[in-house]
Amino acid sequence: MLKKRAINIALLGIGTIGSGVVRALLLKAKTLTRQAGSPLALKLVVEKDIARHGSQGLEKSIFTIDYREAIFSSDVDIVVELIGGEYPAYDYIKEALNNGKHVVTANKEVMAKHGAELLSIARKNHVALRFEASVGGGIPLISPFQRDLVANDIQAIYAILNGTTNYILTRMAHDGLDFNVALKQAQKLGYAEANPANDIGGLDTAYKLAILTSLGFDMIVNFDDVYYEGIAKLRSRDFRYANELGYAIKLLAIAKRSDKKVETRVHPVFMPAESLLAKVDGVYNAIYVTGDLVGNVLFYGEGAGPSATSSAVIADVINIAQNINNKQDNAPHLIPQKISGILPMEDIVTRYYFRMNVLDRAGVLAKIAEVMGNHGISISSVIQKESDPHTRTAEIVIMTHPATEKAVQEAMKVIYRLKVVKEISNFIRVEAI
Amino acid sequence: MLKKRAINIALLGIGTIGSGVVRALLLKAKTLTRQAGSPLALKLVVEKDIARHGSQGLEKSIFTIDYREAIFSSDVDIVVELIGGEYPAYDYIKEALNNGKHVVTANKEVMAKHGAELLSIARKNHVALRFEASVGGGIPLISPFQRDLVANDIQAIYAILNGTTNYILTRMAHDGLDFNVALKQAQKLGYAEANPANDIGGLDTAYKLAILTSLGFDMIVNFDDVYYEGIAKLRSRDFRYANELGYAIKLLAIAKRSDKKVETRVHPVFMPAESLLAKVDGVYNAIYVTGDLVGNVLFYGEGAGPSATSSAVIADVINIAQNINNKQDNAPHLIPQKISGILPMEDIVTRYYFRMNVLDRAGVLAKIAEVMGNHGISISSVIQKESDPHTRTAEIVIMTHPATEKAVQEAMKVIYRLKVVKEISNFIRVEAI
Repeated sequence: MLKKRAINIALLGIGTIGSGVVRALLLKAKTLTRQAGSPLALKLVVEKDIARHGSQGLEKSIFTIDYREAIFSSDVDIVVELIGGEYPAYDYIKEALNNGKHVVTANKEVMAKHGAELLSIARKNHVALRFEASVGGGIPLISPFQRDLVANDIQAIYAILNGTTNYILTRMAHDGLDFNVALKQAQKLGYAEANPANDIGGLDTAYKLAILTSLGFDMIVNFDDVYYEGIAKLRSRDFRYANELGYAIKLLAIAKRSDKKVETRVHPVFMPAESLLAKVDGVYNAIYVTGDLVGNVLFYGEGAGPSATSSAVIADVINIAQNINNKQDNAPHLIPQKISGILPMEDIVTRYYFRMNVLDRAGVLAKIAEVMGNHGISISSVIQKESDPHTRTAEIVIMTHPATEKAVQEAMKVIYRLKVVKEISNFIRVEAI
Repeated sequence: MLKKRAINIALLGIGTIGSGVVRALLLKAKTLTRQAGSPLALKLVVEKDIARHGSQGLEKSIFTIDYREAIFSSDVDIVVELIGGEYPAYDYIKEALNNGKHVVTANKEVMAKHGAELLSIARKNHVALRFEASVGGGIPLISPFQRDLVANDIQAIYAILNGTTNYILTRMAHDGLDFNVALKQAQKLGYAEANPANDIGGLDTAYKLAILTSLGFDMIVNFDDVYYEGIAKLRSRDFRYANELGYAIKLLAIAKRSDKKVETRVHPVFMPAESLLAKVDGVYNAIYVTGDLVGNVLFYGEGAGPSATSSAVIADVINIAQNINNKQDNAPHLIPQKISGILPMEDIVTRYYFRMNVLDRAGVLAKIAEVMGNHGISISSVIQKESDPHTRTAEIVIMTHPATEKAVQEAMKVIYRLKVVKEISNFIRVEAI
């Protein structure tokens, strides 16, 4: 093989993930050179925090606080954006692409909100925009949609995309912990941030779902149309009932075809305990995809962490480097063009689990069933137990047959006003995956 | 988008898989055209069996019995080889590549035995040789090694690669069936062929493992060095003991780094019942890969069948078509160069399960343990049960600590000759995956 010139990389941000990428570039230079067809040289690190200049044993001279050095340097081939967050990362990526730099990013927020625009800019400039690390850490999730499953019309995507919440749910399910206790354990182990709002609240998962939906259904997704809920309302008793009924509780990202529209939603679900996805525990992520040809496929692995994420970032860098070395165009092949046709949340149809606190007296269930019936909701099973002799209340769990979200929301308003109902303690959607 | 000329395909073999590919090409023309950037036109079908000419609603005029029409036609861009078996498929692929045709194949035997040579020929001729469908049906397994995991040094691959045997093992495990009964059921349901020798005996899995080992460890694998065993020796009582001890029994393809060599072997294993791979049931396939950066990833799906396989075949066709349309080189990026350093089977180190029929008298276990000790094999646990008062024999199950295959084979020869041992009923290797 001819000796090729080095491919020069500028790194934006040397935090946890950036440090992982640097370590891998330094420690694995030989493997990476063979794969890329030429050495990968870290030319520049843009980092605002001067305390980090010189970190990872790198010479201080390659650090700068000015992103323009990366974007306007004629020496730099690939800009690797690992700052995170929408701004200024979005601006940096856009400027880099417009200045003819290939870009690799792990930025889920930017890709969820501006992916279609940035891919168009990349295409116009004949440069790459790669983002395998933005979803699922090192698990190949972007590439399968772009290459391996392209012959398929995707019917559904069900995914566990947030390790923090999956860890908390696993502890609640297996050890009977309450939400707050499980969250504290996750924080102690470094699986949850000090401010875990984006993870717990479902926003992180929603960003990732927007990206996968756009790829899987070949459409431009308006991020504001992605429905999301978090896991904070779950109680250990919900897990006990789920177990009793043969279900697991997971925070799922769901995208599926529904007539001519696509459902995209993130919320806790009851799912059959026997399904492989329900067995994905701890900080692991997994995505379950149904295609018209391939049937069901599942991809599983560590969804976060500097090492796994650097696997995806560097694979993107290597693929770009291979194309540069083979004088091939790096522009994205196919970018979504259809405008999003996302089904409004109120129109989705699924089954529901309700847990209510009711007065312990005859006829209560009949009253609730009547309200549900009036809204076209039919009950599939009921568990009533644990009367509390002091308060003279009982807990009642109702599983419904499929109903629209709208009907369920309206029925809940009426049920909430029934005198015999003390509290609607929880309601969780059920997926028959 | 400019209207591009059609990409012309010649299909070699219109059996079950070929028919599936044709159906997908015809029914999904619109999706595939958008993905490929131009229409995919089936120009020619080479099929020796004249009864199949005109099948799938195709005009008889595009059928021929002469493969040279496909290989020498200046009209044909891509040859899709779905004949199967080593010859004449190997010759056809080689001739096609040498005549400047891109080739897509699902042929595991040819790729296992001649992959490195054919990839070199493809590279020399600047044409593609793609074989995603040769392993794991529609599950992306080749592409991850070629693209997504390239930054990793692969440490281990554990895979379930044969749906027939996994179906049989699942029935034996869950329903307590005997091997022959489970096999007959599999044949009835179309999951096993009338002559199931290649599946049952492990050869099919060994072909696929050779391909994955070559990709994962970036080396030329001499197929004769791949050790394989089948599942016919398993008995329902082995599954009962496995269950009692917390294990599942699977036919695993294993490739892992062992000092400077690589182990490649296919045989039934005891594996922890709690591992995700142990939960892959029925005709599904899965591959579990450990890389130094990515950690553990798992890919799961239908490993066979015309629909799933056509997903992989057509993805390969589309990727080639995209490159043709973008005037990009289709030659394989990287082909293995290192000569195989496969660890001889006798040098592997693992734990073992033994099931023996012994005389029901004191001191028998001591005798067996003494022989094992003499060979450096230490026992981790023993189950003794089910004395048969008529024959005055008992069944004894021994789990060992790690030992070399060589020591175990030699110890077995000695144990076999002990008068107190009536039979060594089975021995199965244990993997702590």
